[in-house]
Parts: sequence; C-alpha cells; structure tokens
Amino acid sequence: MPNHPLDSFFSPGSIAIIGASRDDRKIPGLLLTFLRRNGFAGKIYPVNPSCDSIGDLICYPSIAAIGEAVDLAIVIIPARAVLGALQECAAAGVKNAIVISSGFAEEGGESADMQARIAELARRTGMRISGPNAEGFHNEPQRIAATFSPTVDVKPDAPRLLATPRRVGIIAQSGGIGFAIYNRAKAMGVAVSKVISTGNESDLAAGEFLDYLAQDSDTDAILMFIEGIRDPQTFMAAAQRAAESGKPVIVTKVGRSGAGERAAASHTASMAGWTAAYDAVFAKYGFIVSHDLDEAVAIAAAFASAPPPRGDRVAIVTVSGGAGAWMADTLAAEGLQIPELPDALQAQVRALIPSYGSPRNPVDITAQAVHSGGLQTIVELLERSPDVDVIVVVVSLSSETRIPVKQDEIRPLIAAQRKPILFFTYTLPSQFARTELAASGIVAFPGLAAFGRAVSRLVRRSEFSLGWSAAADGPGPVLPRGPVPARLSEHESKLLLREAGIAVPQGVLVRDVSALAAALSEMTFPVAMKIQSRDIPHKSEAGGVRINVGELVEAAAIFDELIAHARRFKPEAGIDGVLVEPMARPGVEMIVGTVNDGTFGPIVMVGLGGIATELFRDVVYRPAPVDAAQALAMIGELKSAALLRGFRGSPKADTAALAALITHVSRLAADMKDSVSEIEINPVRIHEEGAGITIVDALIAGRG
Amino acid sequence: MPNHPLDSFFSPGSIAIIGASRDDRKIPGLLLTFLRRNGFAGKIYPVNPSCDSIGDLICYPSIAAIGEAVDLAIVIIPARAVLGALQECAAAGVKNAIVISSGFAEEGGESADMQARIAELARRTGMRISGPNAEGFHNEPQRIAATFSPTVDVKPDAPRLLATPRRVGIIAQSGGIGFAIYNRAKAMGVAVSKVISTGNESDLAAGEFLDYLAQDSDTDAILMFIEGIRDPQTFMAAAQRAAESGKPVIVTKVGRSGAGERAAASHTASMAGWTAAYDAVFAKYGFIVSHDLDEAVAIAAAFASAPPPRGDRVAIVTVSGGAGAWMADTLAAEGLQIPELPDALQAQVRALIPSYGSPRNPVDITAQAVHSGGLQTIVELLERSPDVDVIVVVVSLSSETRIPVKQDEIRPLIAAQRKPILFFTYTLPSQFARTELAASGIVAFPGLAAFGRAVSRLVRRSEFSLGWSAAADGPGPVLPRGPVPARLSEHESKLLLREAGIAVPQGVLVRDVSALAAALSEMTFPVAMKIQSRDIPHKSEAGGVRINVGELVEAAAIFDELIAHARRFKPEAGIDGVLVEPMARPGVEMIVGTVNDGTFGPIVMVGLGGIATELFRDVVYRPAPVDAAQALAMIGELKSAALLRGFRGSPKADTAALAALITHVSRLAADMKDSVSEIEINPVRIHEEGAGITIVDALIAGRG
Repeated sequence: MPNHPLDSFFSPGSIAIIGASRDDRKIPGLLLTFLRRNGFAGKIYPVNPSCDSIGDLICYPSIAAIGEAVDLAIVIIPARAVLGALQECAAAGVKNAIVISSGFAEEGGESADMQARIAELARRTGMRISGPNAEGFHNEPQRIAATFSPTVDVKPDAPRLLATPRRVGIIAQSGGIGFAIYNRAKAMGVAVSKVISTGNESDLAAGEFLDYLAQDSDTDAILMFIEGIRDPQTFMAAAQRAAESGKPVIVTKVGRSGAGERAAASHTASMAGWTAAYDAVFAKYGFIVSHDLDEAVAIAAAFASAPPPRGDRVAIVTVSGGAGAWMADTLAAEGLQIPELPDALQAQVRALIPSYGSPRNPVDITAQAVHSGGLQTIVELLERSPDVDVIVVVVSLSSETRIPVKQDEIRPLIAAQRKPILFFTYTLPSQFARTELAASGIVAFPGLAAFGRAVSRLVRRSEFSLGWSAAADGPGPVLPRGPVPARLSEHESKLLLREAGIAVPQGVLVRDVSALAAALSEMTFPVAMKIQSRDIPHKSEAGGVRINVGELVEAAAIFDELIAHARRFKPEAGIDGVLVEPMARPGVEMIVGTVNDGTFGPIVMVGLGGIATELFRDVVYRPAPVDAAQALAMIGELKSAALLRGFRGSPKADTAALAALITHVSRLAADMKDSVSEIEINPVRIHEEGAGITIVDALIAGRG
Repeated sequence: MPNHPLDSFFSPGSIAIIGASRDDRKIPGLLLTFLRRNGFAGKIYPVNPSCDSIGDLICYPSIAAIGEAVDLAIVIIPARAVLGALQECAAAGVKNAIVISSGFAEEGGESADMQARIAELARRTGMRISGPNAEGFHNEPQRIAATFSPTVDVKPDAPRLLATPRRVGIIAQSGGIGFAIYNRAKAMGVAVSKVISTGNESDLAAGEFLDYLAQDSDTDAILMFIEGIRDPQTFMAAAQRAAESGKPVIVTKVGRSGAGERAAASHTASMAGWTAAYDAVFAKYGFIVSHDLDEAVAIAAAFASAPPPRGDRVAIVTVSGGAGAWMADTLAAEGLQIPELPDALQAQVRALIPSYGSPRNPVDITAQAVHSGGLQTIVELLERSPDVDVIVVVVSLSSETRIPVKQDEIRPLIAAQRKPILFFTYTLPSQFARTELAASGIVAFPGLAAFGRAVSRLVRRSEFSLGWSAAADGPGPVLPRGPVPARLSEHESKLLLREAGIAVPQGVLVRDVSALAAALSEMTFPVAMKIQSRDIPHKSEAGGVRINVGELVEAAAIFDELIAHARRFKPEAGIDGVLVEPMARPGVEMIVGTVNDGTFGPIVMVGLGGIATELFRDVVYRPAPVDAAQALAMIGELKSAALLRGFRGSPKADTAALAALITHVSRLAADMKDSVSEIEINPVRIHEEGAGITIVDALIAGRG
C-alpha cells in the first residue's frame, strides 16, 4: 500500500490515553487493558493529572508533559473538557485523535456547537480527529486494539480461529454494530483487518475510512454499516477506488423507515437521507447491499474464503436428503443453476455412495458415505468437472468429537481450490468442528438463507462492471442557459429537452383558436390536444387532455372545451394555450426521470410506466450521469424488462433508444444540477427495435 | 388430551430394539445408548440372535422370545430382513414399529415393492408402522429418545436450557432436518415436546402425526418440514384441528425448484407436488410458511415464549443506537408500526437515560443506562403503556461474566407479561448469557432478519381467522351433468358457467354469416366478434378476435375474415362459428381460475389480468371451495388490490361481486372435480362499486 494520510492513525508508534484510569470496570480502564492485552508494541502514555502511574506505566499530568511525539491520542473525559484537551494535543504536535466521549451533536444545542468547534480545530491545525461519540478501532493483524469494546477482549480459552486466507475490513457508523460484526465474523473464523467505529464524524468520516481500506493491503473485502454519509464526494471517490481495486464492498444502510431514521438521527446526529439515492450509488459501484447482520457477515465470509466462480452452476453434496433439497430450493430461489450432473460424472459418484443415495445433484451421499471417505473424493471429482462452477457441501457439524471430513484429505483440496468449495451445516457447529475445519481453511456457514445469499452474491459479483468513463459518450448535451423556473409546462419542458438535443414530437403550441387551422395544416390527423399551464402539472385531472382528435372542426370545439375545463379547474391558473401533437405510435410505456438528492446530487431513474411503478415499485436508480452500458444495465434490472424483450409474441422494443434517452437525460441533469431540480418524462413510448422512442409527456422543475 | 391411537407409539411402556448391538459407534448401538442415557423409564428388550446380553440387558433371539407385550419395536436390520421381522412383530402382538433401515422406495424397483408390502402388512394387521428410512422420534418431556440422532445425546457439561413456558412439536419428512431444528431450538432454550422423523411413510404419514400433535397437551406450537404430503385428506383434517385449537403451525415445504424436487424425490421417495397448491392449503389453515431454518425456529420460539399481542405497535429499547435503527428498519419492512412514544411516556423515560440517549422510539438508553438499572424500569413503563403492543429489547450478550439485566428485577416482569417482551442480541450470545436469561424465562434471539419475521408473524397470527363454514353460503351451484370434453370453446365454457348460475354476457354464436343480422338485431353496437373452436384456445394469436365492430355491413365482412384467418391458422380446426357479444364496459381486468392439484384437489386462483400476473406473479391461491370472506381475504392479499380500492382517483371497484365470482367458481370446481379439470376466466372486468362484473373470456377444460 502506498503511503496514506491515515497510516499514523491506524498504525501509531505511540498512543496517549487522555483520561486513563486504573478502574477496568469502566471505559477508560477497559481501553488501556484491551490495548495492552492485545499486545500493542508501541509506547503507551496514560494522561491523568490525578495519578502518577497505572500499573507499570507512568501517568502524565498533561499531553504536553509527555515530551515525546505522539501519533494518536485517545480522549475519554467529560464532554465539556474535550475541546480544551484537543487544543493541547494539537499544540503538542499530536498527529491524530479519537474522541470516545459522548454528548455532542447527538444531543443538539450547545453540545452540537462544541462538536462544530472540534471540527474547526481539525481543519485549522491539520490534526485528524475521529469521533466524538466513537468506539475507536481495532487493527487486528498489527494487534492495536484502540477501543473499549469487550469484543476485542482476548480469551485464552477461545483462541482466535482463522479460516480464511483473506481479510475483511469493517467500517461502522455505530460502534455497537461494527464490533458486533467483528464478534460474528470471529466466531465464523473470518480474518479481519480493521474494525472502525466512526462516531459523530466531526472530521474523519466514513468516506475517508473507505478510501483507506480501499488501499489497505491487509484488506481484501469491506463491510460497511451506514446511517448517513457526511462526506459524499470523498465517499464516491473511495467507492470508485474500491471498485477499481476489485475489493467487494458489502453495505448496510439504515434509516430506511421513519423510525429507523429517527433512531439514526438521534444516535450519531446523521441525516439518514433518501435511501433510493444511496441504493443508486451502491448499485453504481457494485456494492452488495444487505439488510441482515448474519447475511452481511456470510457474504463477507464467502468473499474472504473462496475464489471467484466462473459461472452459476452449483453442485450440492449433502449427507441429508432433506437438507440438500432445502439448499437446492434456497439457491434456485437466488437464481442459481443446480443442473443435473452429466451421466459420466454420475456414474463415478454412484460408485462412492450407498444404493439409496443419489448422484444427480443434489448429490445425496447419505450419512454412511461420510464414514467411507466418499465425501472428499466426490468433492475432488466436482472440482475437476467443467460442468460445475461452485461446490456446496451440506453437512452436520454438531458433534463435539467428530467432523465429517478427513483433515489431511480435505486441506490440500481447499488450499488448491480453483472454484468455490463452501460448507453449510444444518446443525449448529460445535466449537470442536469450527476449530477443526478452520485448520483446513474451511468456514462453516450455519445460516441457510444467509448462505444462499452469499453464494448468489459471490456469483453475481463477477458480472459487475464499473462501466462509465466520462469521455466514452462523446460531447455532452448542449446546455440551455440562464435560470429555469420552478415549474415548466409540458411545452416548455419539451423545448428545453429539444434545446439539449433530445428529440420530442413536432408539436405546436396554439395560443388562440384562430391559429389552430394553420397549426393543423402541418400535421396528420389524428392528433392529441393538451392544455398548457405551469399551474396545472396534472393535465388529465383537470380534463385538459383529448386524444385521437380526427379533424379541424372537432379540434376547434375541443380547443374551447380544454380552455374552459382549465378555467373551471383552477380559475387563477395562467394558461399558455393548447399543445397540439400528432398521436404517438404505440409502444411500451416507460418513465425516465431525475431528481437532485441532498447528499449525492442528481439521480436518474427508469421504470415501467403506468400502474406498475407505483404498485410494484419496479424502478431502478443510478447517480447521474450514466453511460449507455450503465443505462442498459439499469433497464436489465427492471422486472418489467421482459416487456421490452418481446413479451407474449410482441416485437422486441428499441431498448438502445431508451438507453440513449436515459444517458442523455442523466447528463442533462448532472450538467444542469444548479438550475434544474427534477426531470420527469412520463410516459415515453418505446417502439419496436430500430423505430426509436416517442416522448409523450415531460415535466421539468427548475430552481427558479 | 383425549386418547389418541398413537399414544402407545409416543409413550410406550416397553420398547424392543430389533438389531440391537453393543457397538455404540454404529446406529443400532447409538440408539440403545441414547434411549438409556435420556432416562427411558419403561422396559427395553434388545433383540439379536447373535448375543445373549448387552450390558445389563438380556438380549432376545427373536421378538417372540420376549414373551411380554411390546408397545414399540424399533427395527434396524438390513432392508431385505425387515418385512420378515415386522411380520414376526405383528404375530407377537407388537402395537407399533419404527423402521430405521434404508433401501426401500427411495431406491425404486424391487426395494419399492418391499415397502409396498410393509404398508400392506400395516393395513392388514393394524400394527402401526413408521418409516422405513426414518430417524425415529424424541419425546423430550417423557424422556423417550427413540432415535440415533446425535442431537439427543445428553451432555453433562451443557445442561438443557428451558427458557419458554410452552413447548414446540417438530414433524419432519427428513430426519436430518427434524433433529437439526431440535438442535437449534435447544440452543435457544426453546422447550420441545416431540421431534418426529417420518421417513418414507409406508403407513404412518405426516398428516397423522400432525393430527397427534394438534391434540397433544404437551404441544403448543408445531414446526413442520415437508417434502410431499402422502395423506392429504388426513393432513387437511389435522390442519383444521390445529387451527381450531389455536396452535400455530410453522411450515417449510421444499421441492420448490426443479433441483429441490429431484432431491426430495430421491430422498424419501415423495412426490414434491405443485407448490402453489401447498401454499394455498397452508394459507387456508393459517400456517406460517418459512423458507429458512433459523427463521422457522425463531418464529416457533416467539410463539413458545410470548403471549399474543393485541396490535402491531412495537416499542424498541436499545443499548446501541445503530442496532436500534437497524431493528426499526427491519420491523418496519415487515409492516409493523414503531410509533414515536407519547410525550408523557417520553418524559418518564428521559429521566432514566443519559442526556445523549433518546426516549422517542427506538428508546436509546445507551450502554450507560444498563448499569444504572434503567432497562428494567423502562420495560416496566412500556408494559403498562396502552400505546405499546410489543416490546423489543436490543442488547449485547457476548460477555461471559455479565448480562445487561438484573435477574431478580426482570424475572417477575417476564413471568407476568401481558404483551410480548422479546430480546434480540446484536453480538452472539455467550453460553453464560443464555443460561442466565433462560433462568428468567427469556429467549435471546441472535438473528436479526429471523427475529423481525418472528415478531411480524406473532402479530399477524392474531389476524387469522379460519372463516369457512360449509353451510354459510346457501345452496351450491346447479351442476351441469355428464362428462365435460377435454377442451371447451369460449362459447361452450360460458354456457356451462351460465348453467351453473354464473352470469355471462348475452352473446350469440353465429354459425353462418346469414344468421348475423338476426343475432345483431338484439344487440347494441359496438360489438365484439370472436372465432369459436375447441382447437383454437388462443383466439388472438389466430387473428380470431375483433372488437368495437360498429355496424352490420362491417360485421359481415369481419365474420368472413375471422373464419378465413382461423382456416389459415389451423386448417384442421373444427370451427363452430363466431361469438358475437356486446362490448364489455370498462373495468379493472382480473383473472379467476381453478386447477385440480394431484395432491389437494381443486385450487382456486385470483390475480390481476394482463401482464402483471406473469411479470410480477401477483396471484393468490386457495383450496376450493372458499366462502365470500375467504375470497375477500384472497383479493386483499394481492398487491394489485390497490387498483380495486380506487387507484389514483378512479372509482372503487365492485370487490364484492368479484368475491362472489371467486366463491361461485370455487364451488363449481370443487363439486365438478371429477368432470372438470380447469376453469380460466380471463379477463373478467370489475366495474365500479355496485355495477358488478363482466366475464369477457372463459375457458373450461374437462376430463372428457
């Protein structure tokens, strides 16, 4: 790893503990105890004016009194004293600080002001500050436990299992959750690089920590728990870096419900934000979203222990028929293939199992075959088969005295695995079994649903591509200049789109019925007629739309009618006239839109038009801009994409033209983010392949 | 519990083990060891001609040699010897037998024939037989471990935790899974009544075991693992009994995927069946379907430990803000309410927590408040609040020395709970914490997603009602007599529906263009014209449908055209003519249909018409017949039900008329199940409230 500004934070040569104490039933005492017990090799300086020594360590009255360079100060004193202590640290040349103390932005009022002053101190002095309200970090490979979390306590009777060749880094905007993930990962034998509790993020925030782990040579996969991102630009740049480095990021975002948001806001004073924007950003960078604790850990464990699979064909080897069937259903529900094995392979397998077993897939070897050693041989056969991409072994590991594999036979297989070989246990694994398997490099997954999701994410991950390069799509759209009013009419919105190079129907805005004939002379009947007013965004509600108008006399009557409807509907509305357009050809109706998110800026959206968007929430978001490949990926994620591919014998739709529209609109939203707040094209009709699209309706909202 | 035919099976006074052995590394020896070690109080008769004694037990050369009544024989000998041994058992008056031996129907061929002869023996002699290929049962309260599963092994160093006041019964068509559920339930401290492995079910099958547990006074909730039901009538009657007794049934059905079905078929030789029919039956009886092992156990644990809640308002008390937020999101995603607490209650809570905590809900008491004892007091306040229905406590239980509650304070609260008080731990619970909490009657739930599902199922369960009483809906439909051809045309299908009392449009089948004028004279234009042929079920594909036909001359031309299209489309098709109908009024298009399932008989279905059914799988099934209340419940389960309730300002639809149609069609399908195999009404248009429905198209398939 190249030098990183946070190197001295995570690998300090010296640590001062401001507020250190002898009482290890309380936080300051626990922190010192854990730091020493884990074997920190650098210098430790307790700071506390009310004592001279703690154990064999000299205790200093102040940070200045130490008289040596300090890489990291950990501050655990009452909130009101923190700013002063940090000022002293900065004056003494301390490079980094973690503020454990609570009672800042999460309380609001004056306490929030204190936090603002801490942030200001960091900016002014260059000393990097993590917290306040943080639980610290644990750098496991370097044995630096700078935290009071009991999960880092070293227990002689439960030695650390290390089953995975790769390490997971954990970043959490909740110390409780960050160290709970660590606690669960440890139990599974997953190796961990760093656990980072980010606290209130007065200075150092989650994005910068992500940047660190993306470059950290000890970290191969990253687990994040997010309440709200405070450094979105840094975060997105770090996400890009993680994606480029090929490190998978598994992320949980809370604050999705009103109550969750309330909790997150009061907890670390974060703004939880609109979660669709988060999901859009996660999707862009290939982050793997998980809503469950064990599932997130299981996904990380799969990445830490298995090589990337080449495809989605899973072979299941099981000692229990019922457990094998359940596993097959679970994996199939995740969209994976469990193909029947080729005949030749079945014949080889059949020779190794009892007559009442099955060689088909799931391969049911029955409990008997465990004793005969058939399990290892079958795994070896599957490892060599070109028809299998992933091997799932389903066993029972509850015994305190026996495991169903022979260590010396399975260890070389696991060490040399070219495709994932993953173990699920339908009974809870005993400590004995965990220990034995870990020695062979095997993680025993105990959760079925979580395991299914982990295998699926491992397989799908290899399909992700970052896509976007800014230059790939030629010049951007021509940008209309000047401010955009808060609400444009359909006609005005379409003019803006046209100005930006997006084709809209050849419509005419007729301001007076006398101009109707001239307008219609250039159009073929039938036509659509739509009232135009910035004050009537929902035209149908106002009786403001008529379609299939067949000829001039009818059109004139309808013109008057539309104006009359609008006047009645909203007497104070300013009416621009009636937009006359040729009827749009038939096609699949979709929505394309953009909004500006407070955290991440413009977000582009595509969905099936009509009721499906609302009823089935079949919409996909990405941060704008997107390129054509990303737009196609977005379309592909829609359940309703089947409609575009030619549904029930209908022709394939012009998906390329839809993708081009998404791309174009997304660039427009990104480039005009300071003047446009929302674009909604609803519906746009997608015609058959090669026949393009028609924008039927559009609405743009500006920032005025 | 009243006497049940299986009493002597589950509570035998004497057990013979045929094939008993001294070698307790093998199955026969293990079985004897576990039976004795668990403390079976009755007589044990080992049977094995090749030894005289096993330990202090006399070993008999044959079952006849025992010379005493035997309630239960457990048979563990090679497959080919099993039938003979069972014949000897029957001759000796043995009441029940369990065949552990494998190598029967799961192998097919001659081995399957042996199983058929075992079944025949049971029928002939009245001796009840479980298995073959079974893993036996464990009757925990009576200490009868009639199984070789290592999960029943009694370990002095890990005493059985019993945290729940109620007991769960387990029925599994896979011994591995049944005892894995037991293994996991034990770890959580859930009390278990019986664990039953049903094996190949030559005689005793899952339905009869369900009937037993539904009446068993030791069993308060039931967990089932199903591959395929072999005694559907017994099963449904037992399900009805369980529902009436108020015992919740949590069920997993595997064989949902092709591979899962393959595995289930080879495993216990069961036909996995069409899973929609299973789900329909489960829904009818209020079974709680789970697809995950830990989730199923968590749901059972919730029912075993908590009283039924009165509503869905959850209060969350947490020591970690992040964990509280995650819990809130998880519960909200399950559709539960997490309302902000009333001001007065917040004020009381605020006095018990630090200034940087939150009293809103989630109630963030912070780690500090644990030490001050605030947790118990807050739970007590919430218990008394009329604004809270469920209390969820989020804690960390990883410590080996401390738990965050005081036993003497929390125990009386739990014992007297009138609403559920449920504990989730975000770290893995230590054995110490599990033991301490169990002593207070508290189950520590370690899985977040599973916990959320469990709380949700606990709440939703109280909304279930069995509904149906056969007499409630008046006389059944009038049944058309005689056989029904394999495929009826639309016109014939509609005639059959009309005969059964279901209103269809006043259409006329025009066989010759010359009859068109007369037919149209009774109808108002516009009309729809549709080709009629048993050989052309998909009329549109054949160009066989024209709508909005405006007058007679046009109609005549179209008549000829439709006939010509059909002739070209399928020259050999027998053409009945053209059905002319008035155009249907607009309405929400739905599908109503029935199919006959091989296991459960007629199943009725409702779904949104058009693309939604296929794209979004928005359909609901029930076994036929259903009453109006059940039909309304079916409609209510559709995501698209929003369309019927008045969507985006459209009028409410006539849901009552749709429910009446579902009811009527379901009774028709049930009553005609021997002559009709399928009914599909697609679409039926649901008009505004009070305006009824119009059956636009219908297809009936008969059994010929």
